Amino acid sequence: MSELSKPLLHNYFRSSTSIRLRAALNYKGVAYEYVAHNLRTHENTRPDYLAKNPAGLVPALELADGTVLTQSLAIMEWLEETHPTPPLLPADPLGRARVRSLAYMIACEIHPLNNLRVLDQVRAYGQDDEGVTAWFQKWVHTTFIPLEQLLATSPATGRYCHGDAPSMADACLFAQMFNNQRFKVDTAAYPTIERIFAALNQLEAFKQAAPANQPDAIT
Amino acid sequence: MSELSKPLLHNYFRSSTSIRLRAALNYKGVAYEYVAHNLRTHENTRPDYLAKNPAGLVPALELADGTVLTQSLAIMEWLEETHPTPPLLPADPLGRARVRSLAYMIACEIHPLNNLRVLDQVRAYGQDDEGVTAWFQKWVHTTFIPLEQLLATSPATGRYCHGDAPSMADACLFAQMFNNQRFKVDTAAYPTIERIFAALNQLEAFKQAAPANQPDAIT
Repeated sequence: MSELSKPLLHNYFRSSTSIRLRAALNYKGVAYEYVAHNLRTHENTRPDYLAKNPAGLVPALELADGTVLTQSLAIMEWLEETHPTPPLLPADPLGRARVRSLAYMIACEIHPLNNLRVLDQVRAYGQDDEGVTAWFQKWVHTTFIPLEQLLATSPATGRYCHGDAPSMADACLFAQMFNNQRFKVDTAAYPTIERIFAALNQLEAFKQAAPANQPDAIT
Repeated sequence: MSELSKPLLHNYFRSSTSIRLRAALNYKGVAYEYVAHNLRTHENTRPDYLAKNPAGLVPALELADGTVLTQSLAIMEWLEETHPTPPLLPADPLGRARVRSLAYMIACEIHPLNNLRVLDQVRAYGQDDEGVTAWFQKWVHTTFIPLEQLLATSPATGRYCHGDAPSMADACLFAQMFNNQRFKVDTAAYPTIERIFAALNQLEAFKQAAPANQPDAIT
């Protein structure tokens, strides 16, 4: 990355993959220019953006030389390799496997099912707002039940998902909780997850990644 | 990992996350004991398995000391760190980001939507076999269109997704193609993906990971 010009972060204030990547960038102290794509009005499918990122998804990180990195988890791994301090993964392979598996439980089992385009398809099956909300909540609970169990019972859990420093798993958990709020998911049955979310909200880097603090936020 | 006893691979012959992990294990020459969990009869939700893996998903890799690793991508990253040769990721950070983003396009945008439990929910919305197939195909095409474009236009693509050695992206692509066959996805519009799949099928490690070659295969 050029030290002269900041990378462009193509994202959207309440996209949970955007939230998790902003948390990672902020935590590592990597400055970026915020480029908003309103997913509701399909700004992400405009030809100029598709030319950079054919999948049309956010987030994407456009480096000074024009290289466009996509997929939030791939960008986070790239960040970890190119900006290792402070780390978002522990040093030991088993710890790294634990953090990644917690992150992927959210990133692969919950988030993909609750994307806007998927909710639109559920609506096309005749589901109203209540039905769409039920779909959303179903997949959160399906994974939050074992996630809470894993976090509550493992000695590896600390102030955050893995020990006392935030990790990629925390970035994913933090982002998911904002999505949950929008769809009124009751998380009272997940006290460890709620405790970790509260702790993350005390970190300036994470707080600044929250939807309400973005320039394109709709209040 | 103990050199005395092989890890147990909890998996299912046609689970695509299992296929991708078997390909990675085989390619790296890591021997394992095959433990089959029939997803159709919900063997993965038996109490003895849930005690090891609360999410009840396959695959999981149970090490000699009882440690259970979950989430296929996390296990593949762990394999890469503990058994680096032959690699499933290139050495340079940008190359690694490209491979991971291609892998996650499949692992995060296609596979989660086409899980058995999700298809069951689509059926609960009144969709018959044809409707469920349409749902499956929709998400494959949504991602295969940009995936083909990225692979066909990048000079980084070689015999496989990234250069001339297979990678994590190839393991995911290989597995997805077997899922596609079951749901009769026409992939003629994706010649680069088809070419790479044909090349992967010539690798003994990948061929041995195919569903038909597993002890629990139903023909």
